[in-house]
Amino acid sequence: MQSLKSISKTVSNANSEKTPPGELALLQAIRSRAGDWGPAKAKSRVRLGIGDDCALLRPRAGEELAVTTDLSIQGGHFRLDWHPPESVGHRTLARGLSDLAAMGARPVAAFLSLGLPRELTVAQGKSAAWVTRFLDGLLALAAEHRVPLAGGDLAESPIAIADIVLTGSVPQGRALLRSSTRPGDSIYVTGSLGGAAAELAALEKSPASFAGATAGGKPAPHLYPQPRVAQGLWLRKRGLASAAMDLSDGLSTDLAHLCEESGVAAEVDAAALPMGPGATLEMALHGGEDYELLFTAPEKAKIPKRIEGVAVTAIGRIVAQKAKKARVLLLTELGSEPLLPQGWEHFAGNE
Amino acid sequence: MQSLKSISKTVSNANSEKTPPGELALLQAIRSRAGDWGPAKAKSRVRLGIGDDCALLRPRAGEELAVTTDLSIQGGHFRLDWHPPESVGHRTLARGLSDLAAMGARPVAAFLSLGLPRELTVAQGKSAAWVTRFLDGLLALAAEHRVPLAGGDLAESPIAIADIVLTGSVPQGRALLRSSTRPGDSIYVTGSLGGAAAELAALEKSPASFAGATAGGKPAPHLYPQPRVAQGLWLRKRGLASAAMDLSDGLSTDLAHLCEESGVAAEVDAAALPMGPGATLEMALHGGEDYELLFTAPEKAKIPKRIEGVAVTAIGRIVAQKAKKARVLLLTELGSEPLLPQGWEHFAGNE
Repeated sequence: MQSLKSISKTVSNANSEKTPPGELALLQAIRSRAGDWGPAKAKSRVRLGIGDDCALLRPRAGEELAVTTDLSIQGGHFRLDWHPPESVGHRTLARGLSDLAAMGARPVAAFLSLGLPRELTVAQGKSAAWVTRFLDGLLALAAEHRVPLAGGDLAESPIAIADIVLTGSVPQGRALLRSSTRPGDSIYVTGSLGGAAAELAALEKSPASFAGATAGGKPAPHLYPQPRVAQGLWLRKRGLASAAMDLSDGLSTDLAHLCEESGVAAEVDAAALPMGPGATLEMALHGGEDYELLFTAPEKAKIPKRIEGVAVTAIGRIVAQKAKKARVLLLTELGSEPLLPQGWEHFAGNE
Repeated sequence: MQSLKSISKTVSNANSEKTPPGELALLQAIRSRAGDWGPAKAKSRVRLGIGDDCALLRPRAGEELAVTTDLSIQGGHFRLDWHPPESVGHRTLARGLSDLAAMGARPVAAFLSLGLPRELTVAQGKSAAWVTRFLDGLLALAAEHRVPLAGGDLAESPIAIADIVLTGSVPQGRALLRSSTRPGDSIYVTGSLGGAAAELAALEKSPASFAGATAGGKPAPHLYPQPRVAQGLWLRKRGLASAAMDLSDGLSTDLAHLCEESGVAAEVDAAALPMGPGATLEMALHGGEDYELLFTAPEKAKIPKRIEGVAVTAIGRIVAQKAKKARVLLLTELGSEPLLPQGWEHFAGNE
């Protein structure tokens, strides 16, 4: 945290310039906008934010601190010609919040490391600079979840990259884990699946038609995914879930990970999958980036049909892992077939 | 933390392949090497490391958690044709550890977000893959400071980027801050200044002559800077320092930041500056990346000449800030002159 830590110059307006505003001016703009919200409850856990070598967090007695980092890279995770800057900012933070949700953790503070080409820091005609609109999107979601931006770093870079760090609090020993589901448990997902992949396919065909999409407009599962923080908290507080994770890489990949960490296998009922808008079965199984919660609970647990306003659907069950058998089976009206991980893997030539 | 969290495949050897090993294999290699050290004391604060959506840290009662992030980008912070991969890994972690040192915090856990071009994950002839050697350098320094790698993210990227997150523990209310120095205090630095800039200048002229440089070889202030963690802890425990920060951007820039945060001004005695090997006065004043500690203490405080084996030098004093006067003055035998910040600023055209 070399660069967000100390701001020396008073700058009139980092975005009204035609020339790059400089790192200090950008930092001043970020600092003045960060931490403007958050209930006293959250703020009391952030003793020192932007302005020193480190931020200082003060978890309460009996609390653990959940920490997650998520890297978003231009070209891989977003494209400047497809994604509105507000969407990139929103999705950057949503990825981290979704990891906290999966643990049942309450957001405490976010940290942002941002690498930017110089031109993205300059206003374009009447339009604010890309970085300003990126921060608009990120900070709007942060305000919604009352998580202050407590630090980070800023550097010039040939491509845009954003690494988000989220910290959250959870009572000791109570975090929802991946490693604790057992045969006989039922498998649930929040919301619907494949909607993000369907929207991405439409975006690829016609980026211009998505240029005006906003977080407050119609549901946009790819551009503005909604991390299930409230649902994760609800599950953790009730003690109903035996395991949980978030669906970032696709159901086929993520469920396999959950099974591996728990040493079990799973069966998924194809007909039970809640389909997102425009989604095909392939998209629902492998699409990824839905940022819904995947969780398990004992068969007898009373899981409601909605949690904090979001639908919950039973999609299958955990079974014992048998030697030489597939980790996950997909059950259809034609019978059962192995559901192999086909979600995203970097460096694996799956583009 | 989408990618370090779950490793499914058992992989023979991620580095013996001519083809990219794939994300999961790389993660397996990292997971198997991370967290292999660290005293029980440090480990007890990391309840859950790589393998779930988040890591879980458990600070002790009465402790605060210091958090810092530092972004290193190919071309800006390092060059593949100048820096041995081990040096890039070492420097990545050193930057974060240095921020903890500046707060007087004890390292708890590190998180690494890594973006890499595919070719850097593949072995080159008889030489291990760049990423393997990068991790060698990073993990060697981590072992030295007994800080486990508890999580992170991994993604394909057109250029190499590494964002390091360091967490550290400090007793509540006892962290060394920038904002708490007062007029009359003396100014000190650890080690020497400008050596990193001098080595960088030599590296630029003859990269090949530095190809074999290692952390265990002769002092290499640019390639293998030594973060002053022990010195920061010593100062914090003794309660002698009135303020502290680390010297990352250069004395002229960093001292100005310290003064701004504290609302004071400073005088630096040019003749007192401890010069690093090969350093000019310009390098010592503006070079940056020395990762020494800059701290202040009341005039009467008994500051030893060495702390934990590293020299400490008084270089000036804090004075009251006067209207329309320079924040920092440099005193030489010719008189005094304003010492303007000339350290590194991204986006400012100072390359």
